[in-house]
Order: sequence, then C-alpha cells, then structure tokens
Amino acid sequence: MNRTKIAFAVHGGAGTILKAEMTPEIEDEYRGGLKIALTAGWNILEKDGSALDAVEAAVVELENFPLFNAGRGAVFTHDGKNEMDACLMEGKTHLAGAVASVRNIKNPIKLARLVLEKTEHVLLAGDGANQFAAEMKVESAPDDYFFTDVRYRQLLEARKSGVIQLDHTIEKQKSVKTSDLQTSIAENTTAKKSKPIGTVGAVACDKAGNIAAATSTGGMTNKKFGRIGDSPILGAGTYADNKTCAVSCTGHGEFFMRAVAAYDVAALMKYKNLNLNEAANEVIEKLRVIGGEGGLIAVDASGNVALPFNSDGMYRGSITTDGEFNIEIYKD
Amino acid sequence: MNRTKIAFAVHGGAGTILKAEMTPEIEDEYRGGLKIALTAGWNILEKDGSALDAVEAAVVELENFPLFNAGRGAVFTHDGKNEMDACLMEGKTHLAGAVASVRNIKNPIKLARLVLEKTEHVLLAGDGANQFAAEMKVESAPDDYFFTDVRYRQLLEARKSGVIQLDHTIEKQKSVKTSDLQTSIAENTTAKKSKPIGTVGAVACDKAGNIAAATSTGGMTNKKFGRIGDSPILGAGTYADNKTCAVSCTGHGEFFMRAVAAYDVAALMKYKNLNLNEAANEVIEKLRVIGGEGGLIAVDASGNVALPFNSDGMYRGSITTDGEFNIEIYKD
Repeated sequence: MNRTKIAFAVHGGAGTILKAEMTPEIEDEYRGGLKIALTAGWNILEKDGSALDAVEAAVVELENFPLFNAGRGAVFTHDGKNEMDACLMEGKTHLAGAVASVRNIKNPIKLARLVLEKTEHVLLAGDGANQFAAEMKVESAPDDYFFTDVRYRQLLEARKSGVIQLDHTIEKQKSVKTSDLQTSIAENTTAKKSKPIGTVGAVACDKAGNIAAATSTGGMTNKKFGRIGDSPILGAGTYADNKTCAVSCTGHGEFFMRAVAAYDVAALMKYKNLNLNEAANEVIEKLRVIGGEGGLIAVDASGNVALPFNSDGMYRGSITTDGEFNIEIYKD
Repeated sequence: MNRTKIAFAVHGGAGTILKAEMTPEIEDEYRGGLKIALTAGWNILEKDGSALDAVEAAVVELENFPLFNAGRGAVFTHDGKNEMDACLMEGKTHLAGAVASVRNIKNPIKLARLVLEKTEHVLLAGDGANQFAAEMKVESAPDDYFFTDVRYRQLLEARKSGVIQLDHTIEKQKSVKTSDLQTSIAENTTAKKSKPIGTVGAVACDKAGNIAAATSTGGMTNKKFGRIGDSPILGAGTYADNKTCAVSCTGHGEFFMRAVAAYDVAALMKYKNLNLNEAANEVIEKLRVIGGEGGLIAVDASGNVALPFNSDGMYRGSITTDGEFNIEIYKD
C-alpha cells in the first residue's frame, strides 16, 4: 500500500466557550474526551484501517462522552426526550448514510453506517429510522442512559424562559458545579444572548489516501416540531469527496444549511482551485458575515487539516503525522 | 419597479416516460396539469408578484393535481400512508422552509412556506412537523383525499413484488385505463426494471429580479423506514440565490443528495463562471455518469431558463417573456 500522509481531526462543538468562565477541572474533562476520540480514530489509521472506520470509531467515543451534545450527552427536546441526528460519508465512493430524529439509540453514528451499508438510501428519519435500527438489532439505550444532570437542567431553564438553546452555553459549564437551579437561571441570562452551539464530528485521511467525514448531534435544547439541523444533511453539515475534502461542521445549523457549508468548501477547491485551508476559512468567514456562528474540521487526501471557526471557542483536536496530539478549546 | 425579464418554469417529475406507452388522452391530462400550474405562477409574476409567491402557487396546483407524485397524488408508503416532503427557498434572502415525512397535509408546500416565515428553522420533520401544522391551522386532508386508484394500485403491486418504486412508471399511465389489477401487474414487470422517478417543482424570476425555487414530493411507492429524499434538502433538491440560480430537481433522490446537485449548479456559476444552461447541463451529465437518473429546472436573475434531464422524459413547462407556453413531456 502506498503510504500517504494520514491525518485525523475531531470536534466536540463550537460556541460561547470563554476561558474566564471555565474551571481547570472541567477543561480537563473536555480535553480528556477529545483525546479518547482522537486515540480511537488514530489507532485505526495507524493500522492501515479505513478513514470511514476511523471517523465512526471516534464519533462513537464522542457520543459516549456525556459532556458533548451527541449520543449519551444529547440535549433534551421540549418533550424531555433525546432526538439525535448522525451522518457519515466516504470520499472514495461518495456513499453516505444518515439518520435524523432517532431516539434511544446508543450510538446514532453506527446506525448511520448501517444506512450506508445496508440500504440504497441516504437519510432515514424518525420512527422509520428507529424501525430500521430494530431490524438491524442496533444497540438501544433506555431514557435514563441519556439523562445527564447538566442537560436536564438546561432543558428546565430553557423551557421556563421559552428559549431554544443550541448547545455550549457558559451556563452549562457553571451548572456542572452548582446545585442551585435559581442561580443557574440567573447566570444563564447573559449566556442566552449568544448563540450556543453543539455537535461532534471527525474527519480522516487514511494511508490509501481515502478520506471520510462523520457528524453526530443531539440538536437543540428545548427544540420542538421535529427540527432537523445541518448535521445529517449531506453538503450542509457533512461531506466527503477524495478529490477535494472531507468536512464536518458544527454551528448554528440553519445558517450552515442555507449556505450548503460543507459542500461549499469542496466547491471552492474544485472550481476555484483554493487549497483546503483557504476554502475552509472562506466558508467560515462567509458564515460569520451572515451571522452563522460555528466552525468546521476538514482534511484533504494529501493529509492537510483545517479547523477554522468564527465563535469564541471550538472543542477540537488533531493529530499530526508523527502522532502528536493537538487539543484546543479557545481561540489562540 | 425596474422591469426585468420575468421567467417561470415547472416540472411534474422525470423518469421512464415513453411516447409509445402513452395514450393521447393521458398525455392531454398531464399537459393540462402543467398548464394550470404554469398559469397560476405566471398570473402572479405578471401582476408584479414575488417569485416566492409564484413558485408556491404553482406547486399548490401541482400538489392538487392527482396524477403527479405530490400532495393529493402522493404515492403510498409500505404502511399504506402518504408521507410527503416539500421545500422552498428565496434567492434574495436565502431564507428557506422545508418539511419532511408529513401526513394528511393538503398542501405540504404551504407548510414549508410557514416554516420559512414563522420559525427560525429550515427543516421540520415527522410528527413534530405535523404538530407545527396543527398550531398553524394548516389545512389538513383525510386519508381518502390522497387515495387515488392508480397510486394505491402501484402500492399493491410494489408490495407484492417487494420492489420500491420512485414514481413515473410506464405501468402508471396504463393502469389509469385498466380496471384489471392482474393485467396491470403483468404490465408492470418490465416497467420496474427502470428507475421511475417523481416530484413536482417550480422556479421563478420576478420583475424585481428576485428568484425562488420550490419542490414537493410524495416520495417512493412502498418506501419504508422514514426515507427522506433530496426534495426537502437545501442544496440537493432545492436551492435559490439571486446571484446565481434557483433550482428544483426531480430524480433518483439519493444520487442528487450525494452530488449536492441543486447547489452544484450555483457553485459552477459563481466559482467557474458557467452560464445557467452550461451549469445545469453539466450537473445533469455528471448525474448521468454516476447513474443518477432525473432532471432539473432552473432560472437565473436575468430570466434565463434551463430544463435539462437525462431520463426518457420529464413533465415540464415554461413560459417565455411574451407569455408563450412551452409544455413538453419527452425528449425532442
């Protein structure tokens, strides 16, 4: 096998993440979660595994980690349920699988992988997707698996105020430490003025030069009406094509959908001859101009990596070819 | 108001539509349905109405027409239900609204318009979208409104054979005329080998030079697992941006999703400086190469229109600036 430069990156969401509001202990927890995911994907790539396997394995870890808004840590809808979306795409074949609004699935990204492998479809949603999961005997999890104190508190606060939250609010980090709901609500007042955001994702380039992207999310706290964001939408939150790039986005989903953000990175590369970094930064800058807060992670088939964002912070990590971990949360 | 060249086009789906298999009577019915939709949109544009109003009005007529796979004529899922998707997008603001897997909504495109106007979201799906419809007091319709003999026959046939159908099969045209189910099943045998396809849509350029696109579909006959196709996905089946084009696609949705087809037309225009016709044709040719059967209709803000397709036929119509109707079904 021709050894090309392998590359790997993950994110755990972007948003209002201010160092002044974070404790060292919580910061360490987040960094630990990113490291577990990076390691899972990297181990696969190092052993000549596929980019698709690597991004799936990393997102499984991010879904299992309770502080990220996906899988176990998914936020609560208005009805107090967890509705989750996930998507992955393979750059070599352009095959993709996605699920939207699924419930009680331990790892939605595994279900998305089965959509890719076992069906002719790209996107399955709602009860139908859960039926597919049952037929595939995908591991389910009871409601209380998804019950994490901090997320439920977010819901109660959002429901009281009628505000829909996306994800990483300052208040969330604080409420990990507080047991006083009233204090947390008061603290939340300023945080809500920002546009909090959350999703997890991974992108990989394997030794064969194939690339892949995966994204998973628990959506928005207190969401109603079966809202689907950009994560499970090919071209919006997730995209991969060996000729250009693999992209996983995190941010205010509606803006990423209207901008067709993930595919726009690829289009700028193939039609305007921008390199990965230029294309990724141009898309994030365009989103900033229209008020679309968030970021993305991207790789190309040469092993280049870009991790731009226009928010205060983005939980993110990448590994260089020599195996060095880079894990960051804030702007530099 | 500066009078620019207004333009309008509609489609009623693409697929295996062979003249040899069609009767003049049925052909007239289809042409009549397209003309009603064209007239509805054109009347709005002529009176200085907006492109968004025009595409919505046309799609309402196409949804009300029982022979097209949308609204009243929506095909049946595996469970004998109608699950419908619709989407519209405005090129000036880039605002969009979409619904997926909604049931018993008389005009899904009207619900999509309300998503655009009344929410901060782009896409609502399933039960949640139906709850939104109830809150908005959108007109519902009982199951038997959607019951059309030809569609139900398609379901029975598909369920017997385990085949999922997209839409316009030769058999459909025939079964309009036959009352013998067995005959129809026999006739269907060859038709099923093709990839039948179906959706309705409209694109418009108004006097102010604003453009818009709308798409609506009943999905695939006998579909399971809550499959969502390209129609309600921004960038895949529907897209509009005044700087480039408004596009509504019809075809084998999964291919259009992986190709991010609608946005690709726009990307080729803005990044590679192709004109509308070149860009639209390039996308349809790329789809043909990968086996993605179907077509699209597109306008730009100068009033140019393109209606390329790679299937045997596409129900389509456009109106020139002087008000002349062009309604076509087959390749020339």
